[in-house]
Amino acid sequence: MALVVVGGVAAGLSAAARARRVDPRLEIIVLEKGPVISYGACGLPYFVEGRVEKSSQLIVYTPEYFRKERQIDVRIQSRVTSISHPRREVVLESGARVPYERLVIATGARSEIRGIAGTQSPHVFTLYTLDDAERMRAFLRERRPRTAAVVGAGYIGVEAADALRRNGLAVTIFEASQDVLLRDDPDFTAAVRKQLERHKVELRTGERISDLEDLGYDMIVLAAGFRPNVQLAVEAGIETGRTGAIRTDDRMETNLRGVFAAGDCAEVNHLVSGRSTWIPLGTTANKTGRVAGANASGGRERFAGVVGTSIVSIFGTGFATTGFSAAQARNEGFTPVTTRVEANTRPKYYAATRTTVELVADKASRRLIGGSVIGEDGANGRIDVIATALQTRMRVDEFEQLDLAYSPPFSPVWDPLLIAAQQLLKQF
Amino acid sequence: MALVVVGGVAAGLSAAARARRVDPRLEIIVLEKGPVISYGACGLPYFVEGRVEKSSQLIVYTPEYFRKERQIDVRIQSRVTSISHPRREVVLESGARVPYERLVIATGARSEIRGIAGTQSPHVFTLYTLDDAERMRAFLRERRPRTAAVVGAGYIGVEAADALRRNGLAVTIFEASQDVLLRDDPDFTAAVRKQLERHKVELRTGERISDLEDLGYDMIVLAAGFRPNVQLAVEAGIETGRTGAIRTDDRMETNLRGVFAAGDCAEVNHLVSGRSTWIPLGTTANKTGRVAGANASGGRERFAGVVGTSIVSIFGTGFATTGFSAAQARNEGFTPVTTRVEANTRPKYYAATRTTVELVADKASRRLIGGSVIGEDGANGRIDVIATALQTRMRVDEFEQLDLAYSPPFSPVWDPLLIAAQQLLKQF
Repeated sequence: MALVVVGGVAAGLSAAARARRVDPRLEIIVLEKGPVISYGACGLPYFVEGRVEKSSQLIVYTPEYFRKERQIDVRIQSRVTSISHPRREVVLESGARVPYERLVIATGARSEIRGIAGTQSPHVFTLYTLDDAERMRAFLRERRPRTAAVVGAGYIGVEAADALRRNGLAVTIFEASQDVLLRDDPDFTAAVRKQLERHKVELRTGERISDLEDLGYDMIVLAAGFRPNVQLAVEAGIETGRTGAIRTDDRMETNLRGVFAAGDCAEVNHLVSGRSTWIPLGTTANKTGRVAGANASGGRERFAGVVGTSIVSIFGTGFATTGFSAAQARNEGFTPVTTRVEANTRPKYYAATRTTVELVADKASRRLIGGSVIGEDGANGRIDVIATALQTRMRVDEFEQLDLAYSPPFSPVWDPLLIAAQQLLKQF
Repeated sequence: MALVVVGGVAAGLSAAARARRVDPRLEIIVLEKGPVISYGACGLPYFVEGRVEKSSQLIVYTPEYFRKERQIDVRIQSRVTSISHPRREVVLESGARVPYERLVIATGARSEIRGIAGTQSPHVFTLYTLDDAERMRAFLRERRPRTAAVVGAGYIGVEAADALRRNGLAVTIFEASQDVLLRDDPDFTAAVRKQLERHKVELRTGERISDLEDLGYDMIVLAAGFRPNVQLAVEAGIETGRTGAIRTDDRMETNLRGVFAAGDCAEVNHLVSGRSTWIPLGTTANKTGRVAGANASGGRERFAGVVGTSIVSIFGTGFATTGFSAAQARNEGFTPVTTRVEANTRPKYYAATRTTVELVADKASRRLIGGSVIGEDGANGRIDVIATALQTRMRVDEFEQLDLAYSPPFSPVWDPLLIAAQQLLKQF
């Protein structure tokens, strides 16, 4: 009896590959609804931009590779329409049935746009699959659009805006909420807005779109309403959690024994709040896939959780966040204290650039519970230091003592992280 | 009665500035033996290189600034020749006496070259002070040397070699030990050698120099024998520790009540081994100065210690280390397990470069106890993540779960740090 994996992108293939390592003889079948597998979905905006020349560069492995090198039976164009756990089988669109002993659900996420008219027009795009990106690229080449609207200021929306602007289009982003990049933080949003405007991309927050035709743009990118794709799982009796994504334990097992979930369709533990969360990202998809695959093939691994770290490049500047903003922290029951500093990334005499570091701590426990870093240089390294501190439940006074690397080509003697920590300590 | 600070560079001025903040009315006197204060000593190689045009760019503050803006009496050309703690006074070379109530010793380090002939020749240089760097720059300009020998492959030696090579000289580094950059690690040394050779700098390890004249180079840089400058302190009855540097408690107080030490003349606690260590670096000088200044003026602060993090740029590539190498870990009583991986810094489709990550853990406790990162991109950010993990006594299995930022312009979906952690876990 086989391990069956539903979904052949990040989480699904991580699960299959890991299962193969754990059990060299297990029969493993991956069912992918689309025509390609294993593509770097996070690279799609760079293909649209033109920096990545061919979509094939985004494909990491082919079904043939998995079949030949890993003895994993990857079947494309194989959409699963139902799961019967009592019978331990999945049913494909073709009517074929595939029996399983263990099952990994990696059905990802999808855009559930409701109440917007005109989403089916040929000049309206999403940017979730390789096919989406190829369509968009062809449209840019053949139709030479001059204006674009992007609906949604999450990661994909902002990256799509950057890519289209670099193609010469006049771009406007419409965001229904007051926040961008899923960060409830007015200062962070203001910084994103400033950077977008510096590059002539308009950001209109608090604007809910109801009719795409009315907008009057040459092309429209829908990058809103991203939700976990759980319909198949729910119909099979798999429980979802408070976030709407599939609930799992720390082995990525669902309420059905032998059925695991991983990637964008599953919720995970938030290590700062201790509550379940849904933050669909490539890193988490790969990690949870790996753990699900190990446990579905006889291994015993654990996924501790996330602290919610992410970064996006907007015209060359990194905008990175981890943990909670002050507002988000309050929602989670913390009493946040926060500081934001702007400081040099290197000594003045060595081509310094500016960076903004925000730290959020819990008043009672002094624990760091969030942070953000904005900068041309080192935003990723600095956010990773904060993320590491969150993961180990470090207090601000401990963080302030960090022994970080210093040399003029890389950093100033007082790293912006330490300056921020010193400032924050004054509030205790 | 005053707070007197002996030494006016990083540690001394950090102490004075911090003391002023803690006590706005305290009389503070800084005694500096040289003609300038507050220069970025770590920037000297970049002035020699020519990247920093004027030595004045390296000067952060002038005595006038401190006098006027901070009400700190900074006296240059004021060499202290003795300290009489029973009388609570220091004696200057001029014979003048300066009474103190509290004293901060920040006398730094110096090169104690023994058994080498010819160190006084005009073509022989050190690179510790602004004056040294100006002499070297004038020599380069006026004498147009074509060959240079650098004695010592520590940070200053390697940075000086880089700077001279970029000035067109043929450069050879002579190092008495088998190691470079104070890292007992043959693989790390091999990587440094490879990078130096790629840029046509010869590295000769295991070669002890006895006569500089015999070497036959147009110029010679002495960058060896760096030792804590403790003579003044020792003569005053201040105790040194196992490293030869001044022993302090975690408030930076010496065995004499009211006398503090900070910077390159003092030893500090190594947070990985729990033993005292001497790692003279600008970051530690500033931090310990700050703590000494706070405690010498009525505050109460603590310096937890260091994990030994440092980085150096060699022709644009970062060579970073923290904690212990395997050999050093064995010397400290650990049973190290180690792994070294080479991996991409970004996805292949997004201008990936290679980086090498080494992790060292303790077999019994699984604690991370060291690491090194080499790379053109992100070596500083990645070493800082390892340093943060060391500081919080993180285990490898916890480290492997880190939620690091991912986006193609910044990093690959599996960060090299996580790949290294996965590899290392296999050894447990």
